[in-house]
Amino acid sequence: MSRPVQIVEVGPRDGLQNEPGIIPTAAKIALIDALADAGLRRIEAASFVSPRWVPQMADGADVLAGIARRPGVVYSALVPNLRGLEAARAAGADEVAVFASASEGFSRANLNCTIAESLDRFAPVLDAADRPVRGYVSCVTDCPFDGPVAPEAVAKVARALFDMGCFEVSLGDTLGRGTPDRVGAMLDAVLDAVPAEALAGHFHDTGGLALRNVEEALERGVRVFDASAGGLGGCPYAPGAAGNLATEALVARLEALGFATGVDAALLDRAAGMARGMKGAKDGHDRG
Amino acid sequence: MSRPVQIVEVGPRDGLQNEPGIIPTAAKIALIDALADAGLRRIEAASFVSPRWVPQMADGADVLAGIARRPGVVYSALVPNLRGLEAARAAGADEVAVFASASEGFSRANLNCTIAESLDRFAPVLDAADRPVRGYVSCVTDCPFDGPVAPEAVAKVARALFDMGCFEVSLGDTLGRGTPDRVGAMLDAVLDAVPAEALAGHFHDTGGLALRNVEEALERGVRVFDASAGGLGGCPYAPGAAGNLATEALVARLEALGFATGVDAALLDRAAGMARGMKGAKDGHDRG
Repeated sequence: MSRPVQIVEVGPRDGLQNEPGIIPTAAKIALIDALADAGLRRIEAASFVSPRWVPQMADGADVLAGIARRPGVVYSALVPNLRGLEAARAAGADEVAVFASASEGFSRANLNCTIAESLDRFAPVLDAADRPVRGYVSCVTDCPFDGPVAPEAVAKVARALFDMGCFEVSLGDTLGRGTPDRVGAMLDAVLDAVPAEALAGHFHDTGGLALRNVEEALERGVRVFDASAGGLGGCPYAPGAAGNLATEALVARLEALGFATGVDAALLDRAAGMARGMKGAKDGHDRG
Repeated sequence: MSRPVQIVEVGPRDGLQNEPGIIPTAAKIALIDALADAGLRRIEAASFVSPRWVPQMADGADVLAGIARRPGVVYSALVPNLRGLEAARAAGADEVAVFASASEGFSRANLNCTIAESLDRFAPVLDAADRPVRGYVSCVTDCPFDGPVAPEAVAKVARALFDMGCFEVSLGDTLGRGTPDRVGAMLDAVLDAVPAEALAGHFHDTGGLALRNVEEALERGVRVFDASAGGLGGCPYAPGAAGNLATEALVARLEALGFATGVDAALLDRAAGMARGMKGAKDGHDRG
């Protein structure tokens, strides 16, 4: 009997947002449709943040309008505030996500506010949302500005997001430096505050330990994991290094460990190949 | 008490050989010197194969002539035959390496001969060599042409190389598909034929399990591991996917597990950054 796990495919949003090139809308749509064809049931497809800050995601509405909308697939979008929520709703996102940090330094650099201020900003989104809201917590073991992050700090932000109404909180090792023992300690602290059923693991592979950390989370009852086809996104802090865990590696490992992902490996390989072709592109121009 | 391990840095040869671009000789020299500065004591620096087949390595003699030759550092070169050995000797390589496959399909594709014929070709190299000879075995769990490889087939080739006089046999998971249980079974079979002291692990990270497989080997007494700064080389069978284990990830993991590598993490980060800058380059021309 295989135990079910859920994979949240973040390549088309989190992945492409962290690649240097601007990928044509049609290519994004083709990638998302290929991922759905492969059996991925949760796909982060767009972000409704200001195109001034994230030009890679400026075509979110067009992407959501262009995809094939496979039945049973949830297409989600990142929203930073109420205006983003409105845009995501208008574009027909099935689910939205808000984004907080476990470290003050990253919150300041990435959101230009304190952690508490970011939570205040999300409250009206949660109040107004008529669809499920996911919460991200970044820097759950290490922050590029503040160094190691205390497990209790992660637990506090995760609990706040859960209490505000996030149905799921995704714990992100943004730098990919989390070792199994430190990830385990972080998870233990978070599990004191939020039930395992409401948690997801978002592990980066910069230190080569993403799958190891997935196992730490599996042992503790976490059954939802974020990954990016082809490892799309890389590490924003070490260009050329690994970042997002590759969905194909996650699927292979989960299946080998006796978990059922519902993903067709051959069709996923096809999608991952498309994703890898989008890696490291310097711009949107065709170089032939 | 930290237990010592040895790292064989293969980025400048195995890594760059599998990158599409031609890296300028001066950049290779700078990378090798930076790796030696970081404390790496075994560096695969060149390959003396036909430049018709591997144009990336045509400047091997110039590279070996240009590096700073740190005392205590062993600079090695890959040689396919007697002619390669002569060239490596003339260039002053401290150590040479020969390259076999555990699968007939890969041997045919890569060396254009059977496994037995490749061993026959190496015999005169071993006889004539006046410096240590390392033996590589590729496809130790999976072959891109023949599929899964039997542990006994790996043991047979490893034993043959050891018996011919190779001081060390490096076991390569060329496709990066080896799972810990299959790598463990392969190692168990090889260890029946070759002592642990004469083995090295060369694990690719395509499946995200390279460090996991390193641990399987450590548990069995293997204390030498190949890695590539910045993950240089990638996966030849899935462009854009991970291939060679990144040296910086290996060092961090080994030190965390209580093994002493002698490598300075900050200086290695500098070298890894140089290596990552060489990844994925389409050609040798400066694009500004």
